[in-house]
Amino acid sequence: MKRNVYLNMKPVAQAREIFLQAFDWVALAGTEQVPTADSLGRFTAGPVFADFSSPAYHCAAMDGYAVKASDTYGASDERPRLLGLGDQARPVNTGNPLPPGADAVIMVEQVHLPPEGQAIEIRQAAFPWQHVRKVGEDIVSQEMLLPHHHVMRPADVAALMQAGVFRLEVLQRPRVTVIPTGSELIDWRDAENTQPRPGSIIETNSLFISGMVSQAGAQASVTERRPDEYELIKDAVTQAVESDAHMVILNAGASAGTKDYTVHVIKKLGEVLVHGIQAMPGKPTILGRVRGKPVIGSPGYPVSAWVCLEQFVIPALSLMQGQAPSEPETVQAVPARPLASRLGQEEFIRVHLGRVGPNIVATPLKRGAGAITSLTRADGVIRIPANSDGAPQGEPVIAELLKPAEAVERTLVIVGSHDVTLDILADHIKAMDSRIGVSSSHVGSLAGLMAIREGRCHLGGTHLLDEDTGDYNIGYIKKYLPGTPVRLVTLALRSQGLIVKPGNPKGIRDFGDLARDGVVMVNRQGGSGTRVLLDYHLRRLGIDPAGIAGYDNEEYTHMGVAVHVLSGGADVGLGVMSAARALNLDFVPLMEERYDLCIPEALMDDHRIRVLLAVLATDRFKQAVEALGGYDVAPMGRIHALPEMD
Amino acid sequence: MKRNVYLNMKPVAQAREIFLQAFDWVALAGTEQVPTADSLGRFTAGPVFADFSSPAYHCAAMDGYAVKASDTYGASDERPRLLGLGDQARPVNTGNPLPPGADAVIMVEQVHLPPEGQAIEIRQAAFPWQHVRKVGEDIVSQEMLLPHHHVMRPADVAALMQAGVFRLEVLQRPRVTVIPTGSELIDWRDAENTQPRPGSIIETNSLFISGMVSQAGAQASVTERRPDEYELIKDAVTQAVESDAHMVILNAGASAGTKDYTVHVIKKLGEVLVHGIQAMPGKPTILGRVRGKPVIGSPGYPVSAWVCLEQFVIPALSLMQGQAPSEPETVQAVPARPLASRLGQEEFIRVHLGRVGPNIVATPLKRGAGAITSLTRADGVIRIPANSDGAPQGEPVIAELLKPAEAVERTLVIVGSHDVTLDILADHIKAMDSRIGVSSSHVGSLAGLMAIREGRCHLGGTHLLDEDTGDYNIGYIKKYLPGTPVRLVTLALRSQGLIVKPGNPKGIRDFGDLARDGVVMVNRQGGSGTRVLLDYHLRRLGIDPAGIAGYDNEEYTHMGVAVHVLSGGADVGLGVMSAARALNLDFVPLMEERYDLCIPEALMDDHRIRVLLAVLATDRFKQAVEALGGYDVAPMGRIHALPEMD
Repeated sequence: MKRNVYLNMKPVAQAREIFLQAFDWVALAGTEQVPTADSLGRFTAGPVFADFSSPAYHCAAMDGYAVKASDTYGASDERPRLLGLGDQARPVNTGNPLPPGADAVIMVEQVHLPPEGQAIEIRQAAFPWQHVRKVGEDIVSQEMLLPHHHVMRPADVAALMQAGVFRLEVLQRPRVTVIPTGSELIDWRDAENTQPRPGSIIETNSLFISGMVSQAGAQASVTERRPDEYELIKDAVTQAVESDAHMVILNAGASAGTKDYTVHVIKKLGEVLVHGIQAMPGKPTILGRVRGKPVIGSPGYPVSAWVCLEQFVIPALSLMQGQAPSEPETVQAVPARPLASRLGQEEFIRVHLGRVGPNIVATPLKRGAGAITSLTRADGVIRIPANSDGAPQGEPVIAELLKPAEAVERTLVIVGSHDVTLDILADHIKAMDSRIGVSSSHVGSLAGLMAIREGRCHLGGTHLLDEDTGDYNIGYIKKYLPGTPVRLVTLALRSQGLIVKPGNPKGIRDFGDLARDGVVMVNRQGGSGTRVLLDYHLRRLGIDPAGIAGYDNEEYTHMGVAVHVLSGGADVGLGVMSAARALNLDFVPLMEERYDLCIPEALMDDHRIRVLLAVLATDRFKQAVEALGGYDVAPMGRIHALPEMD
Repeated sequence: MKRNVYLNMKPVAQAREIFLQAFDWVALAGTEQVPTADSLGRFTAGPVFADFSSPAYHCAAMDGYAVKASDTYGASDERPRLLGLGDQARPVNTGNPLPPGADAVIMVEQVHLPPEGQAIEIRQAAFPWQHVRKVGEDIVSQEMLLPHHHVMRPADVAALMQAGVFRLEVLQRPRVTVIPTGSELIDWRDAENTQPRPGSIIETNSLFISGMVSQAGAQASVTERRPDEYELIKDAVTQAVESDAHMVILNAGASAGTKDYTVHVIKKLGEVLVHGIQAMPGKPTILGRVRGKPVIGSPGYPVSAWVCLEQFVIPALSLMQGQAPSEPETVQAVPARPLASRLGQEEFIRVHLGRVGPNIVATPLKRGAGAITSLTRADGVIRIPANSDGAPQGEPVIAELLKPAEAVERTLVIVGSHDVTLDILADHIKAMDSRIGVSSSHVGSLAGLMAIREGRCHLGGTHLLDEDTGDYNIGYIKKYLPGTPVRLVTLALRSQGLIVKPGNPKGIRDFGDLARDGVVMVNRQGGSGTRVLLDYHLRRLGIDPAGIAGYDNEEYTHMGVAVHVLSGGADVGLGVMSAARALNLDFVPLMEERYDLCIPEALMDDHRIRVLLAVLATDRFKQAVEALGGYDVAPMGRIHALPEMD
């Protein structure tokens, strides 16, 4: 039943080779002459030779007196010598030309001026060419100063100017025209300050694409948006390839839908080199050529577009600037979870990366091609080859870095329960030491304890109610972390309760109301502290979960629960007050619970943990947490006694 | 006798601490609001929270049909099910909002359309929320998206726009005013196409400084040049600190000369924090504060200015952008020569770096603070601490990288005789493989062979005449490289002769003329092939070097010799025709000699050497060498039989 609408999908590597081989990129770019003074960041078109020598004449390298060295021979402390001013010794400042006959300079600090003022006294001989910068000492006329395709740095600019090279032949900056297409798009300028209506999408891909392209050294220009109409898109492409643009990128419409015209337009005007790549995300990528220029159909989902840009557009822009495409820095990383992948397509999995003990741990982010935050939050990318069905947990794989390797080394890895205060905490940690990054994965309290046990994180947030003792977390730590000494540090007490619609139209007051007819709930995932709390109270009240509408609908964060209530997907969910407040929802407080940070004993001296603990002690952080509402910060930073464990 | 005119010179590290502690840099920068669409590369002023959720509504993640999942339960290949179009199944494209009641999407590829057209046929059940992007799946309203002082990347811009954050509070871009001072300076615009007259200096430091500053993320503006007059400089500084500039840099006039007013001006208008640093180059650095703004007196020599910028200005600009000053990447490197340094000052030695076998070899470049090419050619910097008198040859030291580490790994290290064709060769190697850099040190043929023996280079150029056999190089290799199997590959035959002034005014015809009264020569350094050649012929002719004027005046390159003749420092020098031609000098050819490349056998399979050998085989390179004049390229690439050695 399943049909492949792409005629001939190509593996990423093959598609890249086809595309990069299809053009003479440097010739496509062409050259131009610019004032050397304006050439910073440009690439030389050919080797550059000096026009002048530098220095252009023998000159003083110091402030002092120009002399003939042979006049000074024999001078010593015992036999000081006088040199006649204006005759044997002439004052020079640094950079002054050496007067005729002089071949050395004596520094002003080494000269005594007798009161008569007609001579200088020296007590040391000068050697020939002492403190003299000779003609051509730095640059010799006609020598090669820079090779071709060399990027101009500040010192290169200055050196060429010193060598009399005032105009420079450079490669043209690549010019890229971006054409946004799609009838559903609205301009962000029109969307400002109003939530987009269902069916309309704020067009931000053109900003994303032109940003990527300009960071790769090109000039991007974005055309007006085109609706999904074949003729209009064809006209836009025709206009773009007839302009001075070197490359054209159409955004969206590259897929196989009924309104996806890109492939037809390129086929009509030129040729399609690649239609579809065996990649996830990124599949609906089109690579084509029209009138000798590359025309690219980039997918509409931002992460798909990112794959298309990273794999094809950016390497091409490098080649247009005479540079080999850069290879990403890589590290060996250990997946914190199994990374399943579909056979037959290469998968680009965005991951958090952070060093925990001997390993760099890779925690996968959201998979969806639409999840732009999986790019903003990613530290790296793990590529699962097309012939693999995934990478198992714990076995090292290669991760391509999106951040410097040292940033990964300095990242604090938090895995566990989600709380809004963790984001605030991360920001305050960065304020205290800007080098520390925080990567936070929300998997629930229990999964966080497991991550600590397996050395996959530095700490986790946890709020697991111990049904026997009524205390929090300690019982679970005894049970699940018997061999891992940890400290338990309280972040805050927080108010748990029912998040309901404004005005609480269904009159929901307590757990019992969840089972009422006509009430739909949204739940948290198993293993989360909030779920444990819910299940405990349902059991206590003898309520059967099977009778609760929406019990199986799980979200992974408090905010996810709140959004679900706000959007009408549910009437109620259990969560923290701050989430309700953030979205102007109503909140029925039910109980106060303790939210702790669980930190391995062995890490208590780690610099990042010390900074974290220092932040917990600041008034500024306490105030920021209190301002969220629903938190009691009095016990913040308290360390709990844990029973002896071995 | 020596007097220290600086009141209180500071070690670099201490000066840096004083300066960086003296300002609240982020507060100095201040914040401003910009459209998020224009925020690429800017730094967030505070944490950024989402205004909308994204998606803002449940929407289709695929092209297909929106359905209610429960309507599809039970469908299978055996029991296909029909869903009424427009009622149970509604067509949706990717991104469309889910119609009311629908909670799943079936992909268009998995649907069969019966000819009647009133229904779709499915053979598989849909699960709830299948192919649906739920409200807030990517971004939840009010969640923290970015921390403070985060640099905006393309994905960040797009994410904030999706989250309804259309305007963004960012740190202001640092604004730096550069004031060039010095009466001897001429504007490069006035210098274009004319060699500067003695005494005038083309002002390029302002370009260098503003280039450095703008690459560090700041906006530089350069004022008019000011002559060395106290009042004019004071006015310029006053004007600059009263403008909206965050920082002011005066260039030159920071030294202790009679016309160096910077320190007096800063003292008058504000306070001097540091006057003079214990650094070489960079000593005459002044760090001050005027009306709460940093005012810096930067030294006039380009490499000194570079030290001042790298150590003080760039770190300050990082702090103004909320970033910790970046620490340079370092490698362990082995000095190819002893690096002497004066006690009491930290020395910044610019070096070539390249991996040769197990070591990264550091070959020092020109030491002079005026040698801007020591920056353009440098791969790294070795810092010799103030309490050390240097680093011995062969013992590993730390080098700070100016290039990526992988570029150092790919550099071809050539040490030996100088020939103009080596520069052309380097350029052609880069043309064949843009990843290969070439670092070339000119130490003479014999020193090159020593470098090969000691594993300090990949190859060397050599043209050492064997007086016994009349052959080139082989006898020397037998003598000096007995345990190092090498290959000898001819680059070219080249014409050696006498470089003389245009018209040969002294009528110089052969070696015998060098000893004539009134003839002054310029020589090459000992160990160079050209020097060996000269000394051989002088001995043969029974001429005593002591009787030759200028015999002790040594230059390290052919071009250096030619420049010396051109500038009138000598009448004649022995060298190659291409050097004479480049400067329009006359040339008296005396003999043809063989210039070979000596390459260790073990490296013949190294990729870089293979590329080099491939270049020797190209017509393009042969033609480029022939065009220089004085070269016979017929034997280029020929490999010479070497006697058995062990």
